Amino acid sequence: MNVKMIGRFLAQIIAVEGVFLLPALAISLGYGEWDAVTGFLYTLAIMAAVAGVLFLLCRKAGRLFGAREGFVCVSFSWITLSLLGCLPFWLSGRIPGFVDALFEIVSGFTTTGASILPEVESLPKGLLYWRSFSHWLGGMGVLVFLLAVAPSSGKGSGFTMHLLRAESPGPDVGKLVPKMRQTAMILYIIYVVMTVINIIFLLCGKMPLLEAVCTAFGTAGTGGFAVKNDSIASYSPYIQNVTTVFMLLFGVNFSCYYLILLRQIRGVFKDEELRLYFGIAIAAIGLIFWNIRDIYSSAGETLRHASFQVASIMTTTGFATTDFDLWPSFSKTVLLTLMVIGACAGSTGGGIKVARVLLLFKILRRNIRQILNPQKVQIVRNNGRPMDEKVLSNTNAYLAAYVIIVILSFLLISLDGFSTGTNLSAVLACFNNIGPGLEAVGPTCNFGAYSAFSKMILIVDMLAGRLEIFPMLILLSRSTWSPHRQK
Amino acid sequence: MNVKMIGRFLAQIIAVEGVFLLPALAISLGYGEWDAVTGFLYTLAIMAAVAGVLFLLCRKAGRLFGAREGFVCVSFSWITLSLLGCLPFWLSGRIPGFVDALFEIVSGFTTTGASILPEVESLPKGLLYWRSFSHWLGGMGVLVFLLAVAPSSGKGSGFTMHLLRAESPGPDVGKLVPKMRQTAMILYIIYVVMTVINIIFLLCGKMPLLEAVCTAFGTAGTGGFAVKNDSIASYSPYIQNVTTVFMLLFGVNFSCYYLILLRQIRGVFKDEELRLYFGIAIAAIGLIFWNIRDIYSSAGETLRHASFQVASIMTTTGFATTDFDLWPSFSKTVLLTLMVIGACAGSTGGGIKVARVLLLFKILRRNIRQILNPQKVQIVRNNGRPMDEKVLSNTNAYLAAYVIIVILSFLLISLDGFSTGTNLSAVLACFNNIGPGLEAVGPTCNFGAYSAFSKMILIVDMLAGRLEIFPMLILLSRSTWSPHRQK
Repeated sequence: MNVKMIGRFLAQIIAVEGVFLLPALAISLGYGEWDAVTGFLYTLAIMAAVAGVLFLLCRKAGRLFGAREGFVCVSFSWITLSLLGCLPFWLSGRIPGFVDALFEIVSGFTTTGASILPEVESLPKGLLYWRSFSHWLGGMGVLVFLLAVAPSSGKGSGFTMHLLRAESPGPDVGKLVPKMRQTAMILYIIYVVMTVINIIFLLCGKMPLLEAVCTAFGTAGTGGFAVKNDSIASYSPYIQNVTTVFMLLFGVNFSCYYLILLRQIRGVFKDEELRLYFGIAIAAIGLIFWNIRDIYSSAGETLRHASFQVASIMTTTGFATTDFDLWPSFSKTVLLTLMVIGACAGSTGGGIKVARVLLLFKILRRNIRQILNPQKVQIVRNNGRPMDEKVLSNTNAYLAAYVIIVILSFLLISLDGFSTGTNLSAVLACFNNIGPGLEAVGPTCNFGAYSAFSKMILIVDMLAGRLEIFPMLILLSRSTWSPHRQK
Repeated sequence: MNVKMIGRFLAQIIAVEGVFLLPALAISLGYGEWDAVTGFLYTLAIMAAVAGVLFLLCRKAGRLFGAREGFVCVSFSWITLSLLGCLPFWLSGRIPGFVDALFEIVSGFTTTGASILPEVESLPKGLLYWRSFSHWLGGMGVLVFLLAVAPSSGKGSGFTMHLLRAESPGPDVGKLVPKMRQTAMILYIIYVVMTVINIIFLLCGKMPLLEAVCTAFGTAGTGGFAVKNDSIASYSPYIQNVTTVFMLLFGVNFSCYYLILLRQIRGVFKDEELRLYFGIAIAAIGLIFWNIRDIYSSAGETLRHASFQVASIMTTTGFATTDFDLWPSFSKTVLLTLMVIGACAGSTGGGIKVARVLLLFKILRRNIRQILNPQKVQIVRNNGRPMDEKVLSNTNAYLAAYVIIVILSFLLISLDGFSTGTNLSAVLACFNNIGPGLEAVGPTCNFGAYSAFSKMILIVDMLAGRLEIFPMLILLSRSTWSPHRQK
């Protein structure tokens, strides 16, 4: 294990986080929020100290950097980012419990959007900005960011590749492998441009600038932290509809936008995942629209709420315009199902990902065919191209890990004594990085009532969900830590 | 598709079912239950007619019999058995709705034990016997029975093998393949002997004969229909403990008993699945014992209820001695987890099966190792022997199908408007062939309140669960019905 290289990388990551804290500090200074300013300054001092020590200790790093190091690096980066990123909340005294502060920032970085705060409007503006910005940073991946902007210092073979592999969502990142640094930069440019367009649309709806920026951060990262206590409910229908559209857009695989830039628009329209993604969204909106048709006063209002909630849950954002926990069970079950499916691979959203769901169906179909015709070799295709068996086997292992983690977490947090619906939806909402669940963790409630132990479980779930399980699982594997590098 | 051969086979299956109806008819005659007698006689007449027509139509059958025919044969047999087996309930007027009667008998044959009846003590004894006997017959598999006793009429190559493959539970029935007919017979002899021992133990506890026979049928098939309204709660602690032990014994892979007969006891003790099965059972009993320690008056009573409920749920029997829906959430979540895990492969129990859970963990471990050391070929072992990749791929596909069916059913029955906990536990209880769920389908309640549509969904779930999904899925596959036999 190349510990020194990982240490040096962590120091860089902390430095980036420190730089990103400065706008939040500036906002708090501008508004004269002295408790928040104190929190930010202490945090910056601690970050400088930790990064400095790491840098000094890990100056002379070897160059060997394999898959093992990639996964460990990603996991540790996210854990470090979270441990330091929660300090402003804690040191400012605005969130007195450390576990609570950690829960809040992990929920931010993982773009979950689950909160332990009963209300947010009284928070200092600087902290609100930091809270929403964590979504934006976590959405595209902070390591990807570092790789995109950092000077290419010959970091040993495979460094970039193994890091991106471990942080990028989706079953198959193969297409991103060539020219990775350039790709990372293009992805971030698309991300920034789309966020800016989102902010402009919100400003046209007469939203104040800071609220527009924070809401766009939450939308772009498919996070879900809002700046109002009732999420997006009190904004105008225009702003709600803009948010619906942008949530859906940020749930699309970013390589589709890349292809559009390259004018390969036909390829985009033929993409199986994209078609299924919009197909599921439209079907879910239709089913819920039909199921809740008697609740709201007009068809337009019904459609607005149905489409907003579907977009929010399916892209795992977690904004809400209405208390969907009051909807009939069928609609709630549709939403629970969307929680599990999630957004497209390669987007900022979470969940199992539409691409994996598609693959699972194809694997199943192949299996049935194989039972019927044992002699014939059956091939699984994606967009017409045959899939690598390794991707299939990884998809299967992913599903197994997914089910096992959901069940274990469900079991552990049930010690707190909440109802089955609450516990199950809490686990699914955190693990899939959505935010609100149902019943006691529904859109009008929060996660504050859970015990510190359960919050820690949910923190691990959020991280495992964002990093797609394996980087976290690999930390638990004995062979990761064995001194002998197996070849 | 060799339709005629399937038809002839169905005729034989119906004949067997008719013969098994005779004891029930005798009991009803003995007790002078004329409504039930009428029901049985009409049913026998219909069976004779259907079997006769099938036999006449399908006299000249070809000899080609492949995996396709095996799966279709098994599915159709179970559907036919159920459609005819429910007639005594319906024609006697004791269950006025046909869907309700079908639900009850499918629940019987699939050894689920979920009931739509609010109370059972007023049922005629003959019907009670038939209801419990359906568990016993379904437990070991009615096709297996037919193969064990029927004269070996040169039925085309692969006939026996493909049928057994399709009906036997568990990921790997390879070890049973040689000398299949003999094995089927030995399995049935073990099954009969163990049932008789169970009856004797119950009689020693001063249980009336008919009740003892019915209870033993429910235990042996891991079914769960009881002859009392409160299931096993009003019986003595002795009888409850006897039932606990026998439920656990019938949840063991029957090939273990076969090995004991062959005096290969060391192999049994080293069996990984068996160890995990008892390990999980003991852990679950311990956790629930600790969680409910304040509910009952003595530690002995607590232990009795904890172990009974764990044995009942894990083996997917579904008997109850207490209303576990009143237990704290943690205990209920432990039980929900056990529902999913289920009993051993090759037992009469349902669920995913301990062997598959073990394989999933091993697949996961292999995947992590493969990520860390991409060059090295990793092999999954079971009891020391390397596993066939096909079994692994089938296990993965099984899990995918399992998750997809659970989610779809959960979605469809939520149209009835019950709570998330009720719907989820109803689907899991039916699909895993357990019986009672939680909340509105808890051990003191029944499934009668669901709509006919939801009952049909749950009927399909029970059948898919008992037949381990693929025989049912294959009925839906286009290539099963394509006229061209693919080679």
